[in-house]
Amino acid sequence: MTAVLPLALRTAREQVDPTLRAAVARLDRDSRRVSEYHFGWVDADGAHTEAGGKALRPAMTLAATEIACGAAQPGIAGAAAVELVHNFSLLHDDVMDGDASRRHRPTAWTVFGSSAAILAGDALLALAPDVLLESDAPHAAVAVRSLSATTRVLIAGQAADLDFERRQDVDLTECLSMAHDKTAALLACACSIGALSAGASREQVRALHAYGTELGMAFQLVDDLLGLWGDPQVTGKPVLSDLRTRKKTVPVVHALTSGTAAGERLWELYAQPDPLTEEQLHEAAEMVRRAGSEDWTRQECRRRLELAEAQLDAGSLGDTTALGELAEFIVRRKL
Amino acid sequence: MTAVLPLALRTAREQVDPTLRAAVARLDRDSRRVSEYHFGWVDADGAHTEAGGKALRPAMTLAATEIACGAAQPGIAGAAAVELVHNFSLLHDDVMDGDASRRHRPTAWTVFGSSAAILAGDALLALAPDVLLESDAPHAAVAVRSLSATTRVLIAGQAADLDFERRQDVDLTECLSMAHDKTAALLACACSIGALSAGASREQVRALHAYGTELGMAFQLVDDLLGLWGDPQVTGKPVLSDLRTRKKTVPVVHALTSGTAAGERLWELYAQPDPLTEEQLHEAAEMVRRAGSEDWTRQECRRRLELAEAQLDAGSLGDTTALGELAEFIVRRKL
Repeated sequence: MTAVLPLALRTAREQVDPTLRAAVARLDRDSRRVSEYHFGWVDADGAHTEAGGKALRPAMTLAATEIACGAAQPGIAGAAAVELVHNFSLLHDDVMDGDASRRHRPTAWTVFGSSAAILAGDALLALAPDVLLESDAPHAAVAVRSLSATTRVLIAGQAADLDFERRQDVDLTECLSMAHDKTAALLACACSIGALSAGASREQVRALHAYGTELGMAFQLVDDLLGLWGDPQVTGKPVLSDLRTRKKTVPVVHALTSGTAAGERLWELYAQPDPLTEEQLHEAAEMVRRAGSEDWTRQECRRRLELAEAQLDAGSLGDTTALGELAEFIVRRKL
Repeated sequence: MTAVLPLALRTAREQVDPTLRAAVARLDRDSRRVSEYHFGWVDADGAHTEAGGKALRPAMTLAATEIACGAAQPGIAGAAAVELVHNFSLLHDDVMDGDASRRHRPTAWTVFGSSAAILAGDALLALAPDVLLESDAPHAAVAVRSLSATTRVLIAGQAADLDFERRQDVDLTECLSMAHDKTAALLACACSIGALSAGASREQVRALHAYGTELGMAFQLVDDLLGLWGDPQVTGKPVLSDLRTRKKTVPVVHALTSGTAAGERLWELYAQPDPLTEEQLHEAAEMVRRAGSEDWTRQECRRRLELAEAQLDAGSLGDTTALGELAEFIVRRKL
């Protein structure tokens, strides 16, 4: 993990937080309390904390808006709206997945109950169009439509993810498609929404959207590698966590469908009714490696990063240094 | 129950269904299937049925748009958007409340699981702004903001409802406020959204909104009476159903806080740890009557209806016959 955060990440939170906090302050008392806890602004008792996420998507929105429009400011409403949708999906996903911790803290539903977490997620989702439409962005309505379409893709991705848990026949194409829907689609929206709402050219919006899609895929692939070999101190999850819960992530599905002896052995381990022992977990991770799936995922991640950069070159955009620095930071965590 | 449906109810479904169905058809396969089941368009196996609700809110939107704009057509997108939000809230409320049946059918979560029902609700909520913004309504963005604000009120109402279950000190003011948030707010939005999106005068929009608020309160009070004494064949719920689940509805809270001996006895029954016997259920209902709460609720309902009609008189609106016929139908069910 890089010790120094890119400047864009450090400043994005300062720039977007006032809009985000003002939006959340409009919620009913219960949803507000749950949301403020979830965002890491307060602890379970309502006392002030600073435990928030990295504000990665807002930072991408602001950096992308700057290279399309020459300033980050027109992207602030879009950045806040994307962050609201992202956190709506985290609140609901944690309930559905039964995940007990996020960002090194107990998840909202474990603290306030499932109903309160569902309602808070609903409230954040309902807020998102409002934040855009009350801004002075000339094309706010188009941006709302883009975000609404993206939200439906996000929902499809979560549905596929839940579906994969029950299925034995998930192939790599489906798995990559799920990664697109769950992660890349919102990053694409984050990268393009500021330019879209400000009225940048169709070519610029398209380039930033395509950039965000490829970067989002790279991001998810890194996340999948971290879910296998990430440092628990950094990820906030136990070592080999995705294998413990037998998640069908990209490297895992690549191994399972590799037609290798290692893939066969991984199938046996995933099909075992009892929880995997520590020894079996390490064996499963070794099978992913032996099937060539760690290397493949790393390579695919690099390929996606290159595709992303090529999109920027084609987009008649301004100085992309800050955006590139962000991309480096979020993707090189593991490579 | 009136045997003959008002014309407005019969035609509203025909007018709004194409927009609603086209919107739902845009969802991912899973959310679409759950939503189509929930709307009563298909059964659990996906076969065509006609089991939908009464399309009451769309009918109100169209009738209200007609008296403000001279035609119902400009209200279609708003009617569909309100119906999407209404059904989002039903899908999620049924999960949170653990309700097993709705409109004489098993609720969506009992058929497809909680996660699928949560995701379908999310998807309907995300669709609502889209339907408005893709219409040719000149003030669609203002209508989206109104609907978004209303959705947050709806969420606050559901949060209060859940909170009431745990609390022993709910007073009548809070209870009426919850009824406003859960029911009247969306009916107010339904009555005003067509006029708002079409650019009717501020005076007309205000009058229709205030009309919907009062009518919505009357509607909820009738619903509360039906939850106590409604015919199971009509309500689709067992007799005295709200007492079985010890819901803190308006007539019940009126009785509990009446300071009468009947109210005291009702407290004892509500505080009893074991389920109420059939005899105790009938006793509880009798206590609501004796406390004067049935009469009070009936009277308050009539008062709200009169307030509603007075709003229309003040709004410089066209012929309100169709709207009045609808109001009669939905409120006189029990009075």
